[in-house]
Amino acid sequence: MTGQGLPLAGFRVLELGHYIAGPFAARMLADMGAEVIKVEPPEGDPHRGWGSQVNGHAVWFSIHGRNKLCVSLDLKSEDGREKVKALAARADALIENFRPGYLERIGLGPEVLQAINPRLTIARVSGYGQDGPYRDKPAFGSIGEAMGGIRHLTATPGVTDHPPPRCGVSIADDIAGIYAAMAVLGAAWATKGNPEAKGRIIDVDLVGSIFSLMEGMLPEYGLFGWVRQPQGAALPTAAPTNTYLCADGKWLCVGGNSDAIYRRLMKVIGREDLGADERLQTNIGRCANVKEIDAAIEAWTRTLPAAEAERLLDAADIPVSRLYDMKDCAEDPHFRARQTVMEVRDPLLDRTLLHPAPPFRFDGVSPPEMVRWTAPAIGAHNDHVFGELLGGK
Amino acid sequence: MTGQGLPLAGFRVLELGHYIAGPFAARMLADMGAEVIKVEPPEGDPHRGWGSQVNGHAVWFSIHGRNKLCVSLDLKSEDGREKVKALAARADALIENFRPGYLERIGLGPEVLQAINPRLTIARVSGYGQDGPYRDKPAFGSIGEAMGGIRHLTATPGVTDHPPPRCGVSIADDIAGIYAAMAVLGAAWATKGNPEAKGRIIDVDLVGSIFSLMEGMLPEYGLFGWVRQPQGAALPTAAPTNTYLCADGKWLCVGGNSDAIYRRLMKVIGREDLGADERLQTNIGRCANVKEIDAAIEAWTRTLPAAEAERLLDAADIPVSRLYDMKDCAEDPHFRARQTVMEVRDPLLDRTLLHPAPPFRFDGVSPPEMVRWTAPAIGAHNDHVFGELLGGK
Repeated sequence: MTGQGLPLAGFRVLELGHYIAGPFAARMLADMGAEVIKVEPPEGDPHRGWGSQVNGHAVWFSIHGRNKLCVSLDLKSEDGREKVKALAARADALIENFRPGYLERIGLGPEVLQAINPRLTIARVSGYGQDGPYRDKPAFGSIGEAMGGIRHLTATPGVTDHPPPRCGVSIADDIAGIYAAMAVLGAAWATKGNPEAKGRIIDVDLVGSIFSLMEGMLPEYGLFGWVRQPQGAALPTAAPTNTYLCADGKWLCVGGNSDAIYRRLMKVIGREDLGADERLQTNIGRCANVKEIDAAIEAWTRTLPAAEAERLLDAADIPVSRLYDMKDCAEDPHFRARQTVMEVRDPLLDRTLLHPAPPFRFDGVSPPEMVRWTAPAIGAHNDHVFGELLGGK
Repeated sequence: MTGQGLPLAGFRVLELGHYIAGPFAARMLADMGAEVIKVEPPEGDPHRGWGSQVNGHAVWFSIHGRNKLCVSLDLKSEDGREKVKALAARADALIENFRPGYLERIGLGPEVLQAINPRLTIARVSGYGQDGPYRDKPAFGSIGEAMGGIRHLTATPGVTDHPPPRCGVSIADDIAGIYAAMAVLGAAWATKGNPEAKGRIIDVDLVGSIFSLMEGMLPEYGLFGWVRQPQGAALPTAAPTNTYLCADGKWLCVGGNSDAIYRRLMKVIGREDLGADERLQTNIGRCANVKEIDAAIEAWTRTLPAAEAERLLDAADIPVSRLYDMKDCAEDPHFRARQTVMEVRDPLLDRTLLHPAPPFRFDGVSPPEMVRWTAPAIGAHNDHVFGELLGGK
């Protein structure tokens, strides 16, 4: 590693996390160089059982648990709680995603922990947040997506025989996790170098994390009573931008929604008449006539395989992409050149795996240097953490 | 404001952003209390023209530009560039989302700026990142979503007559923006209180931001050649969790995918036989028989209006939500009680608007205290910033 290395070297985080949101938050910090101590029950985070396995270890967890120190203890035992307190005394931040009230019930609430370490910042990730009438409801990511407004919008107008799809990944958990990591660092910036500063208690909810993405829809409802309806693959406020069917049955995403790009696009598809049409020189005019434009584009894409249509549009400097599946991603030359996709040896699985790079990069640190190690086994760092760090405590 | 206030008070950010990703990153920092100086051309960020308007001002931008100081200058003029340099000399971080290479071409590249202020961290948000073969391609958020893998997954198996929908919001820009804000704070933590430390150059790409959410799909492709296919509203690895049609044509999202919740769910729908079925006591068994379980659930939801089915499931402590539209969100008692939805006076629009609270909260700071002001007009803070801050420079 050249230069200054990873920025969070020396920042210690205690993770009392399980499943997705809490561990994802802690992993963001670990990928930036923090020392993350993941506390698991003796049987491990249940996430370790998710998805396909090699050598008895989950493939997904190789990424989800990477760059962390893993210790195991029983939170329900006095010994386990004493270890957590001793670790909290030595940590900068703690991240947890139990149901609200659980940590208090087992005697590890924020008041207890901050009495031990007043400078400890505690980030709490939950479905509905730490207060309010729905606080105690059970919440999964899917419910956060439904209530936060994104499921209603992820749909095709007129399709009534299939439910609106999810986006295929645990988007509410992921976004809440990134927000939590960000907020922890905001609090850490305030605390560092200020001996008077106390740690903060941070409350991040899955529902609110999704709701935070709803653009101007909330004030538009308040002012005008408008309720945004789903638009399929189109945008309500820009044209032409859509996903078009090609001759081989594949879909092509095209963004032709700037004045100059629109004219280039019309030239490629052989419709310079539309490119020159006075009505269609501005975005407002194109939005008003979007059906006509979309039909012209799809009349062209339907004559070509997706790869060929993509090549022609790309050559004309028009934003375009087929809908990448994982094979496309894994084999893409740009992903490989930037090491967004990289090979990493996983000693637990005893295989070389493909890992995704963090999407945030720091000068002087290559992507492989950000994956310091793959997910350790349950309790792999008990000796190091309970022995060396806590001095045998 | 009680207690310690917002954590980023005293942290100064220069935003050379436009449209969504860069300004969204800067707004996260502004919502946490940073002093964000948004630099716009004399005609303003084109985002100011997006969506519905009141009094000549966009409703969405009231949120998108909140808590910022707005100054206007011409980056193509010598005077404008000198002002940017003078501001960079006094800032902790700079966020930009021009096409890669643009800042260098106008003489404001990272080398120039860090020569003036070696401690300045510079976050660069772009479609494909600052290097690699696709670096110079035009990229919109939709393309980042297509290439990052999420558009392929956001689909319903068997539906071939409609394109896979987008999720209705600018998800690639938003996530890249949150990542950029987080990475800026990671660098800021390292710099603070360390006189030796230099500012970092951070590279965040839209494509990689989406790709970072692809769970274990990349190593599973690498190991087994598996290519994850879309699953509609279901999950591939948990059951039952899906979205079901109700008697009034509305959809209901239900998460019954834990052993205990599953049994409660079967009781509510009058199928205790399935709840007791030996095959269905584990997630693996339920995944293998998911069609039978989903059919039983939907046979029940089809007999009831969505609100009534939701009430019955909620009473049995089963994760459930109808697909909230903006009216549901705006009027929900939990959103109101937690001030996730709050009323804010906007002097430019001369209206009281509904604003969404930040989804990250700090103890002692209420949501209304996090919205210090709504988006200012173009150049509203020229006198303050160019006069007082730069001393008339």
